[in-house]
Amino acid sequence: MNKIEVGFQEICEAYTRIKPYVVKTPLIHSDKLSELTGCDVWMKMENLQPIGAYKLRGAMNNMLSMSKEDLARGVVAASAGNHSQAVAYAARMQNASAIVCVPESTPINKRESAIRYGAELVVYGADYAAAEERAHEIERQQGRKFVHAYESPETIAGQGTIAVEVLLEKNDFDAIIVPTGGGGLLCGIAIAAKAIKPDIKVYGLQTDTSAPWKKSFEEKKLNNDCLFIPSIADGLEGEITWPNVELALTCVDGIIVVGEESTKEGIKWMAKNHHYMIEGAAATCIAALLEGHEELKGKRVLCIITGGNIDLDKFCKVCEAEYPARG
Amino acid sequence: MNKIEVGFQEICEAYTRIKPYVVKTPLIHSDKLSELTGCDVWMKMENLQPIGAYKLRGAMNNMLSMSKEDLARGVVAASAGNHSQAVAYAARMQNASAIVCVPESTPINKRESAIRYGAELVVYGADYAAAEERAHEIERQQGRKFVHAYESPETIAGQGTIAVEVLLEKNDFDAIIVPTGGGGLLCGIAIAAKAIKPDIKVYGLQTDTSAPWKKSFEEKKLNNDCLFIPSIADGLEGEITWPNVELALTCVDGIIVVGEESTKEGIKWMAKNHHYMIEGAAATCIAALLEGHEELKGKRVLCIITGGNIDLDKFCKVCEAEYPARG
Repeated sequence: MNKIEVGFQEICEAYTRIKPYVVKTPLIHSDKLSELTGCDVWMKMENLQPIGAYKLRGAMNNMLSMSKEDLARGVVAASAGNHSQAVAYAARMQNASAIVCVPESTPINKRESAIRYGAELVVYGADYAAAEERAHEIERQQGRKFVHAYESPETIAGQGTIAVEVLLEKNDFDAIIVPTGGGGLLCGIAIAAKAIKPDIKVYGLQTDTSAPWKKSFEEKKLNNDCLFIPSIADGLEGEITWPNVELALTCVDGIIVVGEESTKEGIKWMAKNHHYMIEGAAATCIAALLEGHEELKGKRVLCIITGGNIDLDKFCKVCEAEYPARG
Repeated sequence: MNKIEVGFQEICEAYTRIKPYVVKTPLIHSDKLSELTGCDVWMKMENLQPIGAYKLRGAMNNMLSMSKEDLARGVVAASAGNHSQAVAYAARMQNASAIVCVPESTPINKRESAIRYGAELVVYGADYAAAEERAHEIERQQGRKFVHAYESPETIAGQGTIAVEVLLEKNDFDAIIVPTGGGGLLCGIAIAAKAIKPDIKVYGLQTDTSAPWKKSFEEKKLNNDCLFIPSIADGLEGEITWPNVELALTCVDGIIVVGEESTKEGIKWMAKNHHYMIEGAAATCIAALLEGHEELKGKRVLCIITGGNIDLDKFCKVCEAEYPARG
């Protein structure tokens, strides 16, 4: 696999490029979580993007970086989650045709969102890998551009614009915590944040039910030999690939693993105290703070609230459960 | 009671005055609710103000209209809901002391919010009227300014800034629907909207469990002789007073009464489709559209999503219930 080349310049270019098409999301202070944890807690509310998640940034940057000829041939993507919605939405904004490949396990409502934004839906295979294979087949057959969910310079640069946006608004954070699945968001934010403020710390977050980043990052080599249990943070689930780990090793400070139960508690805490519905991935930020990890103690911490696309049934089930008290 | 004097000029002055202190909240399009209802539905998300409700605007305008001497003596307010939080928050921003009087029925979490923002809490009396009486007593004894929740020119002008903000962003709405309790928001929005776009229609919304505006508006005289049943839209409950009705008769086009069940369905619909937690008062907008009232058919409608401060338990209970299908 090729090394990914993306730097602060590409992120700044992406920032300028996508600015008219994405929402400058609010940066809010949580006095309650600050009191509770002894940290000074701020949250970047990417759940308030039009599709309900930050993924719009990367998809939009891909779309706006293409030639007119490429746009005319259309795009293809694979994802069971927010990336399909993002690509469908971004393509519609550019009057481009989009095909989105999703695995058979994708719930009806997530299929519907991509169709709603005008994408053609291809349901194929048992898992993400199979759906991605099908997407590449369509790429070859139809000459469509493949828009990667987390592992292309355009995608990473697009996600990194969050750090530019937020650090130009307020820049005295000690640390940024970033929910991490494929790692595109983590790398984009780390590159931009370190360029603006070299001594800031950037940590990736995963749940203990799916934490291949922890071993891979610490051993400095790809290691997918870990538990993979379905998680409330479904956006972070699954195996990872080397290129983003390699990139992360140049700019990220560490990976924090949070408990599955704490993540559920994070969803509930946010709903109860700030009246926001956030998805499991985003709630790993709250979980990390509630668990009191050493790296964050007493720090001014920026949480990336990545998205709010959670099924109402699942949300209510989580919010009604009791989670064990912590020390 | 004196006639309230407030016009478009006062609202524009308020707009300029409070702009640095309030959030320019997002205006979002609901493709789903548009499809479902045949209207073109837009929503002004005032639930995203820092205190979770539009009330910050009126409170802030009061605070910024006062002399230094008045500010130094502090303020006093009465409310069981969002207005107490708004006054506490606005006073803290101006380094002013605030006393908030709440009736004994006020739930613990709403009491805590006002205290969190630094207000002194006085718990007094069985209902709002008693708490307001106590607040006026404090006003007289301590020389504090009383900040009215819905019935002063400063409050009405502050709430009216929503219409200025939104109509300067997009101005082709046929109608605005406004959740209505005391009527400060309704009058403020109607005055500003008609000044900018004279043929726009402005309707107040109440639930059938507490609808004194309906009769009063139609009979052109105060009539509190109606049902008062506790509602999920607790912010809209209760008796009304003449000055705002008198004012509304000069600028408002009608009152739409929605069902209690539809209001609950509105909360659920919004959570399921847009992943926002909104309070019952705000959900009357969704209810009015779901019910298909004649005034709104086929129109481009702006909903004022007034707030998101709903208890998590109550929210989940509403979201898990089934509501009867409608035609």
